[in-house]
Amino acid sequence: MPSTSIAEELAKKQREISVSEFFERNKQILGYDSPTKALLTAVKEGVENSLDACEEAEILPDVLVEVNKVDKDEFLVVVEDNGPGIVKKQVPNVFGRLLYGSRFHARRESRGQMGLGISGAVMYGQLTTGKPARIRSKTAEDDVAYQIELILDTKKNRPNIISEDFVIWEKAHGTRVEIPLNGRYVGGKQSISEYLKATAIVNPHARITYKAPDGEVAVYERATEDLPPKTNEIPPHPHGIELGSLMQMMKETKSHKLSAFLGEEFTRVSSRVAKEICVAAGLDPETKPRSLTLEQSKALQEAMQSTKLMAPPTDCLSPIGERLIKRGLKNVLGNLRPEFYAPPVTRDPAVYAGNPFQVEIGIVYGGDLPPDQPIEVLRFANRVPLLYQAGGCALTHAVSTVDWRRYGLEQRSGQGIPFGPAIILVHLCSTKIPFASEAKEAVAPIEDITTELDLALKECGRRLKTHLTKKTHRAKTKEKFEIVQLILPRIADKSAKIVNKKVPALDATITKIMGVVWVDEGIAYDEKQKRHTVTITAHNFTAAGKKLNLHVLLPRGIEPKSIEPKPSELREDGKITWELKRIDSVAKSSVSFALEGLDEAEYDESEIYVSGINPGLVIGAEPLPGDWELNYAEFEAEEAPAAEAEEEGEIDYDETEENLDDD
Amino acid sequence: MPSTSIAEELAKKQREISVSEFFERNKQILGYDSPTKALLTAVKEGVENSLDACEEAEILPDVLVEVNKVDKDEFLVVVEDNGPGIVKKQVPNVFGRLLYGSRFHARRESRGQMGLGISGAVMYGQLTTGKPARIRSKTAEDDVAYQIELILDTKKNRPNIISEDFVIWEKAHGTRVEIPLNGRYVGGKQSISEYLKATAIVNPHARITYKAPDGEVAVYERATEDLPPKTNEIPPHPHGIELGSLMQMMKETKSHKLSAFLGEEFTRVSSRVAKEICVAAGLDPETKPRSLTLEQSKALQEAMQSTKLMAPPTDCLSPIGERLIKRGLKNVLGNLRPEFYAPPVTRDPAVYAGNPFQVEIGIVYGGDLPPDQPIEVLRFANRVPLLYQAGGCALTHAVSTVDWRRYGLEQRSGQGIPFGPAIILVHLCSTKIPFASEAKEAVAPIEDITTELDLALKECGRRLKTHLTKKTHRAKTKEKFEIVQLILPRIADKSAKIVNKKVPALDATITKIMGVVWVDEGIAYDEKQKRHTVTITAHNFTAAGKKLNLHVLLPRGIEPKSIEPKPSELREDGKITWELKRIDSVAKSSVSFALEGLDEAEYDESEIYVSGINPGLVIGAEPLPGDWELNYAEFEAEEAPAAEAEEEGEIDYDETEENLDDD
Repeated sequence: MPSTSIAEELAKKQREISVSEFFERNKQILGYDSPTKALLTAVKEGVENSLDACEEAEILPDVLVEVNKVDKDEFLVVVEDNGPGIVKKQVPNVFGRLLYGSRFHARRESRGQMGLGISGAVMYGQLTTGKPARIRSKTAEDDVAYQIELILDTKKNRPNIISEDFVIWEKAHGTRVEIPLNGRYVGGKQSISEYLKATAIVNPHARITYKAPDGEVAVYERATEDLPPKTNEIPPHPHGIELGSLMQMMKETKSHKLSAFLGEEFTRVSSRVAKEICVAAGLDPETKPRSLTLEQSKALQEAMQSTKLMAPPTDCLSPIGERLIKRGLKNVLGNLRPEFYAPPVTRDPAVYAGNPFQVEIGIVYGGDLPPDQPIEVLRFANRVPLLYQAGGCALTHAVSTVDWRRYGLEQRSGQGIPFGPAIILVHLCSTKIPFASEAKEAVAPIEDITTELDLALKECGRRLKTHLTKKTHRAKTKEKFEIVQLILPRIADKSAKIVNKKVPALDATITKIMGVVWVDEGIAYDEKQKRHTVTITAHNFTAAGKKLNLHVLLPRGIEPKSIEPKPSELREDGKITWELKRIDSVAKSSVSFALEGLDEAEYDESEIYVSGINPGLVIGAEPLPGDWELNYAEFEAEEAPAAEAEEEGEIDYDETEENLDDD
Repeated sequence: MPSTSIAEELAKKQREISVSEFFERNKQILGYDSPTKALLTAVKEGVENSLDACEEAEILPDVLVEVNKVDKDEFLVVVEDNGPGIVKKQVPNVFGRLLYGSRFHARRESRGQMGLGISGAVMYGQLTTGKPARIRSKTAEDDVAYQIELILDTKKNRPNIISEDFVIWEKAHGTRVEIPLNGRYVGGKQSISEYLKATAIVNPHARITYKAPDGEVAVYERATEDLPPKTNEIPPHPHGIELGSLMQMMKETKSHKLSAFLGEEFTRVSSRVAKEICVAAGLDPETKPRSLTLEQSKALQEAMQSTKLMAPPTDCLSPIGERLIKRGLKNVLGNLRPEFYAPPVTRDPAVYAGNPFQVEIGIVYGGDLPPDQPIEVLRFANRVPLLYQAGGCALTHAVSTVDWRRYGLEQRSGQGIPFGPAIILVHLCSTKIPFASEAKEAVAPIEDITTELDLALKECGRRLKTHLTKKTHRAKTKEKFEIVQLILPRIADKSAKIVNKKVPALDATITKIMGVVWVDEGIAYDEKQKRHTVTITAHNFTAAGKKLNLHVLLPRGIEPKSIEPKPSELREDGKITWELKRIDSVAKSSVSFALEGLDEAEYDESEIYVSGINPGLVIGAEPLPGDWELNYAEFEAEEAPAAEAEEEGEIDYDETEENLDDD
């Protein structure tokens, strides 16, 4: 009976695989698939741990990173922080055991969530060099630091302590980890210094010092003394909760009543909502959660999905914010001057599988950016830059599924990464980033997330398109102005000579031909005072007097100063409104304000809107959203908007002459 | 002391994360990131287990796959095989415990290697439906089958048996698994039926029956009764072994001498080589392996890398082979008729980190394939089709880093997936595929592997280019023929009339103008007998008699029949050589042979080479590689090869007339 002996034989080979054996043989899954990447991964794991620890203890992070060359292939990676330190008995576990950590079970935004990162680095180090890692840690109440050398016993997934000691450390508290490992040191886009720079930008409260193998030291100074708001732990949101998880929760809950269970163990479930869910599920709110049958549990889960609920609270998340997005983009540009920063888009928080998340997008366009290359996509997850696995990442994929041809970028067949002079920054923050692997380099394509990404990218695309349209309008109208101002006087001269009359005054004629209200702005910057002075002027190049309202929408969180004249409205969300008095034909009217504390490149164009006027007449400002339809009727009877009528075509010289003849 | 209390507080949160909790919260890592993919992943895990088990027991696989719709979102996935069965006491562990299996520690090619797949599917099923999986298994010596319902206790990573029983099962032996899970059923490129079809093609020894949710049944019949050669387990190859692994092996070995350790625990290390390594490392071959210091271990590891060694044995691998690669490509084409299958490239086995691997590439080109789209890349790893995560896969990436412009495909800036009427099939087989994540959808970019991929792709690219060049040459020469045969008689007529002489005979003149040896082939196919008859003819369109050798290179493993005339050489690797007797000017000479048992599309163009003639004179065949340089000198003095001289330009009519005048 050959088959049986085979079944028996196969059975003998069946055995448990320890988690550390698994990752030792599959170290590429942890991000150690090449010597270059290995070095970066080890640094990343150390830095992310340090930032998380500091933020949890509400300490402004001061992180030192050293990469020392030991040998041909061997490096010593050092990461040292001023965090709260780790109590002695936990040090071996934190660094010498995979799947061990404090953040895995907490539903709030943090960088490390898997309990694999730093112990994975220790394991990779010993695998390639045969040497132990050294950790030093001191808490605020310790007089001396605890120092330990350990390796990870991969058969048992337990720390193996080689030596331990107490040492004097001048630091009040903090942790220092030294990991020897084989690697390869490179520069460029995927280098350690680029990673640290990008990290510093989106974590402006951190000070990061980097000593490279060549001994050069770079310091990324703290740009703010304010810690980001501390993220709070929340219970799961009912939306997207899996049936199995719900049943598990009901088995373990201490609540005796279903309604209490729902109210206590989920966010956004008030006692009223809890009852509503029970009713929808056809269940008594007084039922004991443990007693629910499979069918009842399923009905409950479905009711939880269909009940309308508030979006999750945002205090579990820490978005980057508009200012830092712009700064992040600016950093990538280096000395290149772009034409335009589209106002960044920050979506409201949404939920996938009970986990709140939020999407942010920024686009920078034109200027010195290379026009004939695929656009660059900068990816961030929970304020961590993602440098590898772009092709396998939902953030990149979301960019490549938008039809960018609609928004002014070149894209063959309407999919794939578009070509053009642009950089897109994408940030996803969540209480749990669904990484595609333990290397945390790429986000998996969860449907709820890709939907939000798509909406945010399209919104940002529209903002880019608005800019490009405005630019085209202005360019065309300017061209028309120039032609009219050049041609008309010549025709007038000639005609006057022929009919032997005086040359007529042309201002009114030019105005009539143009038929537009021209809005433009000037921005002056005072380097010393870090002060932008913005002046917006409306020129009336129509034949009649015009009244209009001018609106400016400032980036969130920037307070305008010295507003002139006094605005009729100044809203908290950054919207300023002026009701301009009637501007006579060929006259103009200006408003101005100042912004303080920004770098020059952080403000280079205002979002200007108009209302109370036929927006078809206006060049250089968009109709106030929601205003056009409301108010368009009253302008219907007015003169035809010349600028708009000729938007698509060239200037028609014949018509220009006719206009003159009519006069 | 706020910091201390924080360190203490954080310490309290530190805890172990069970491997099943980890994957329950990170189920996207196992391939369960969307309902659509979840269904496919569960099927894949079942089918791969079945095929592995059958092959291990040397049983021709007969696999039944059912996807039954239970509810709105709920499906029941059934996979049943005729494998050896699983002994009773192992069933709960195999299906109810993560990181448990028989193939993780074995260094030979198999589909499942992680010990996560099928228990992951069970876990996902219970998470989404709250229901247990049901497994039935019977070994050849059992009278009844063992049937069990179980769930996976995710807190403990242990099976939780809901019910067990013995049931009558008419099968002699086999395993059946039924997993209820939430999913979404779709068609298209990433569907279950496409996956099964592609699996059947590269596993022609398997019979796969698929019952879709709509009740439709598809049977992929066995195409061969021969099992693929059984893969053998081998010890690691010394190349790429990590220092840490080597030290671990030396700690655990039973060998008392270093040379014996090397010879016994590594492949391709004879006792001579073992001594050579010891000498290179400056170590005594008699040393006890355990006693080596870190420095000595490092020296040993370095010596193992620098010592020249045989490539690993191939019997641990199971490449798809040229015929099946073509068949795989043909399947994707459906009714589309391509112009050309490039002869597939199979590289010799290489090694990464001690693991042997092998790369195979096939390209199909032209014909009905859409010319204006990115080419399609079909990925396979250990005979398993990879359908997701193409963007994050080293196989795709290797394709996009080749400059395909050199090989006749369109590619903006020489990188990215090229555009053109082509499909590329890439297969990687290895004793250990370095997957980028546990979902086994993408291969990580290991340098040794990407190097081999690059070489193989370029070689296949050259074969494509050869075809395209030959096609262009032929087209140009044909055009020239037609022009010459049209124009010359007219000129002759006219000239004859003018000088009032008889119209001259033109054959010799035409021949002289053409100055080429034209090689073409005709392939006839007899559907009934599955027989290709190939005839290759050499036409001498030069002014002098010509001798040449004709060579045909057949795909590996196909034996030619009825070879006419008797070849001067018939090699095992498929090369046939004929020494053709002198062909007079304007005469021709033919050879022929037959191939049996292939489908029509499996053979559509011969690889034809020539030698013993100035290859510049030959259209329709390439110079025999290695032959050109050897033999070119003897032809140097011959007439200028007209066809080559005019290869780049248009036909020069003036010159044609001059030729006539000269006559």
